[in-house]
Amino acid sequence: MNLSVDLNCDLGESFGAYRIGQDNEVMEWITSANIACGYHAGDHNVMRETVEKAVKNNVAIGAHPGLLDLQGFGRRKMQVTPEEVFNLMVYQIGAMRGFAEIYGTGISHVKPHGALYSMAAADKVLAAAIADAIYRVDKHMILFGLANSELVREGRKRGLQVAEEVFADRNYQPDGTLTPRSAPNALIHDVDLSLSRVIRMVKENKVKAVDGTDVAIQADTICVHGDGAQAAVFVRRLAEALSGQHIQISAAGDPS
Amino acid sequence: MNLSVDLNCDLGESFGAYRIGQDNEVMEWITSANIACGYHAGDHNVMRETVEKAVKNNVAIGAHPGLLDLQGFGRRKMQVTPEEVFNLMVYQIGAMRGFAEIYGTGISHVKPHGALYSMAAADKVLAAAIADAIYRVDKHMILFGLANSELVREGRKRGLQVAEEVFADRNYQPDGTLTPRSAPNALIHDVDLSLSRVIRMVKENKVKAVDGTDVAIQADTICVHGDGAQAAVFVRRLAEALSGQHIQISAAGDPS
Amino acid sequence: MNLSVDLNCDLGESFGAYRIGQDNEVMEWITSANIACGYHAGDHNVMRETVEKAVKNNVAIGAHPGLLDLQGFGRRKMQVTPEEVFNLMVYQIGAMRGFAEIYGTGISHVKPHGALYSMAAADKVLAAAIADAIYRVDKHMILFGLANSELVREGRKRGLQVAEEVFADRNYQPDGTLTPRSAPNALIHDVDLSLSRVIRMVKENKVKAVDGTDVAIQADTICVHGDGAQAAVFVRRLAEALSGQHIQISAAGDPS
Amino acid sequence: MNLSVDLNCDLGESFGAYRIGQDNEVMEWITSANIACGYHAGDHNVMRETVEKAVKNNVAIGAHPGLLDLQGFGRRKMQVTPEEVFNLMVYQIGAMRGFAEIYGTGISHVKPHGALYSMAAADKVLAAAIADAIYRVDKHMILFGLANSELVREGRKRGLQVAEEVFADRNYQPDGTLTPRSAPNALIHDVDLSLSRVIRMVKENKVKAVDGTDVAIQADTICVHGDGAQAAVFVRRLAEALSGQHIQISAAGDPS
Repeated sequence: MNLSVDLNCDLGESFGAYRIGQDNEVMEWITSANIACGYHAGDHNVMRETVEKAVKNNVAIGAHPGLLDLQGFGRRKMQVTPEEVFNLMVYQIGAMRGFAEIYGTGISHVKPHGALYSMAAADKVLAAAIADAIYRVDKHMILFGLANSELVREGRKRGLQVAEEVFADRNYQPDGTLTPRSAPNALIHDVDLSLSRVIRMVKENKVKAVDGTDVAIQADTICVHGDGAQAAVFVRRLAEALSGQHIQISAAGDPS
Repeated sequence: MNLSVDLNCDLGESFGAYRIGQDNEVMEWITSANIACGYHAGDHNVMRETVEKAVKNNVAIGAHPGLLDLQGFGRRKMQVTPEEVFNLMVYQIGAMRGFAEIYGTGISHVKPHGALYSMAAADKVLAAAIADAIYRVDKHMILFGLANSELVREGRKRGLQVAEEVFADRNYQPDGTLTPRSAPNALIHDVDLSLSRVIRMVKENKVKAVDGTDVAIQADTICVHGDGAQAAVFVRRLAEALSGQHIQISAAGDPS
Repeated sequence: MNLSVDLNCDLGESFGAYRIGQDNEVMEWITSANIACGYHAGDHNVMRETVEKAVKNNVAIGAHPGLLDLQGFGRRKMQVTPEEVFNLMVYQIGAMRGFAEIYGTGISHVKPHGALYSMAAADKVLAAAIADAIYRVDKHMILFGLANSELVREGRKRGLQVAEEVFADRNYQPDGTLTPRSAPNALIHDVDLSLSRVIRMVKENKVKAVDGTDVAIQADTICVHGDGAQAAVFVRRLAEALSGQHIQISAAGDPS
Repeated sequence: MNLSVDLNCDLGESFGAYRIGQDNEVMEWITSANIACGYHAGDHNVMRETVEKAVKNNVAIGAHPGLLDLQGFGRRKMQVTPEEVFNLMVYQIGAMRGFAEIYGTGISHVKPHGALYSMAAADKVLAAAIADAIYRVDKHMILFGLANSELVREGRKRGLQVAEEVFADRNYQPDGTLTPRSAPNALIHDVDLSLSRVIRMVKENKVKAVDGTDVAIQADTICVHGDGAQAAVFVRRLAEALSGQHIQISAAGDPS
């Protein structure tokens, strides 16, 4: 058996004079970059700079579209219609493709950001709008969505290639969804525990939920954080732990 | 001899709840639509709606990128570097291509808007940045620029197909550039005069400048206005006047 | 008995090159102008122009703060914390006061806009944040809120002067709240009926709800629309109908 | 003789999730805070937080209005009319006053930011628009402007109290204006030299220009930087150097 998994990170979240994230350090360890598209973060200069870095580091380029809410960093839920979601996806994916094109390449994947990601995980109609937008712009792009979510189901239904995303530092509910951030046990702070959980998700397709039961989960891609003091350190430890288990790290969609 | 000319109009300039322009009426008469890309006007919903209308009316789809200045409608000059201009062009062209793609088509041309258009007409470095952006995203897109401007020169230098744009209702300087709007005689208010001037530009490649001399001008595409009470009426009269002279109206780049 | 009621209208909703509303026509008939503050509509130029018009027409100046969502015209609900709401209220009220001050006057009232208005009608915590913001900036400003809502209750609790707002063209639920716009019978299209309902609300403090029962309602101020072809016509008819019933039209807070 | 000088710093420049500046560290040493007003930087949450800090640290609160250009941080010149400048000043000053009012205090001064500051230093008409806006909102606010600039002249002409601002780390031209940043010798990197220059400006009202001649300069307030690794260290050294010369540090306008 030849196991492989993708490491993805949200990058290119700086804006104008505002710098955020450890893009340079993280870029060395990941295989997929989800690059902000100017709605919740990022701007045309940052997008170009980040696409260029991804090309140089041989990291797969992904669009990371969000709600039009720079002040809220795309983290606040908004009342949006499916048509609006379809259109804001097309706009942002298109803009990102422009930058890929000037480097002679394309976009390998799309991962919705923040509140859009959460809403699409639970709301079948918004999930369908997102999957439709990706399919109609370019059906060869891979849809990144929360494991066990409506979004991955809607993507598959349309014949899109889908990468189910898992989180090393989050707890899971018995139904396979994430324990909400509002819950006291939402986060796993013990680094060793989070590493061993990720490895089990990749090798056994299972994770222990908050109630102690085992939940089925498919870990195609692992989300790692790009900011915070320990971001680059953790990514490196995760990469080393995976390699130590002979799990290959390669971009989603790459032949492993 | 088989003469033809393109009629282009700036469309899709509505934003959110704000409606502007007589897009439906004008769309029937023009051959090229320059569609706002969300920076100076337009938004993702308006862009989709306008691209759809262009597809239905068999009008060539163009990106109409501008400065990031919705409040000033992209008409205010800003201090922008060539790198910034390159990047904002790539972003907006890319976004517009997204909408063309969902309708199974592409973008035929790019025309910078407002202050960006004016600055690029006179500033060789900004003109070069614009031409580079178009070339690198897709070198088959046609660059629309002011006749006799730096922008068309820089486009040609790179091997881009260029459409020189003329204005029916504007006066010209002896050097072939537009009489500035600040001048008392900037505009031609006599409709018959403006029609006969346009026809002469198309047939003879000449226009009478403000000093009475004849200036060489190449009229590949004629800019018509999309708002104001008389917009649709004028476009229709212009289309009829051209037909009356056996001048074919067809999109720039179409075999005539 | 000396009855009086205020007529208020949302004005100053233009933005940059975008013009919306029949501000000049409506301004002649109303007693209170709710002027957009640049978040969901309006900009610093429009605000100044509208405050100037209100001063000239002897119309009471109100701030009409909304969510930071120009593209959605402040009509989309967003996930906002009470702290955020408090702060966005202070910002927008302050900005509007600046314009009142240059004309040597002040702000008489504050009415939240769109989704913020609706959320505050039903959500006690957001209502409290709004009432607090008004109270702390200037406790003499009158709070305009939906009749029978949490917002007017929270305003009164703090000792603010409150104007309960009613709508001529909307149906009411048996609990005194508005029939949601999503319901088929949300709107009253019969102008005569809507006029007679308003007059009854003012004279008898009652309105017939959708189930046929009478509901208690206090009509301190009537909201009239500022756009649509019939806007100015309706306001005039309403003003005439009120006068015909010897109901004085005067700004909320004015001695009647 | 009892010498005193003000130390001012641009603060509150964070936006949404983006953090910038060492506001907490710098706040301990300065006497005047120029707080961003949401156009080029800052937002309603950051404004409130920064005003609260200024109140706690007994630092004079100033509005720091800029051009509507978050992406360019207000540093890019834009073509703006005097009316536009007047209005954007009123808006931003008003918004900031709202936050001062909720803490029971007011705004002591106004300093235009970035490109607006530079344009107003050289352009008499824009300088007049700024001075008018301050005067009409509240003529007791102090205008901070570049020493020897049109802005301070226009302020004085209207009877505004004016604080002439000097820079510790910048060179000066023989006419008393700043050596442009584009010049190789724009900045003074030697900290001891910059401290001794500032002290001479305060004590002797003179500074040595780039050509070696002495220029008259009035140093009412010294601008210190709030970001960069050495920001807080430099402010502290400056404060100590001034104290060592028995120069009192107190907010502009305070009785010394």
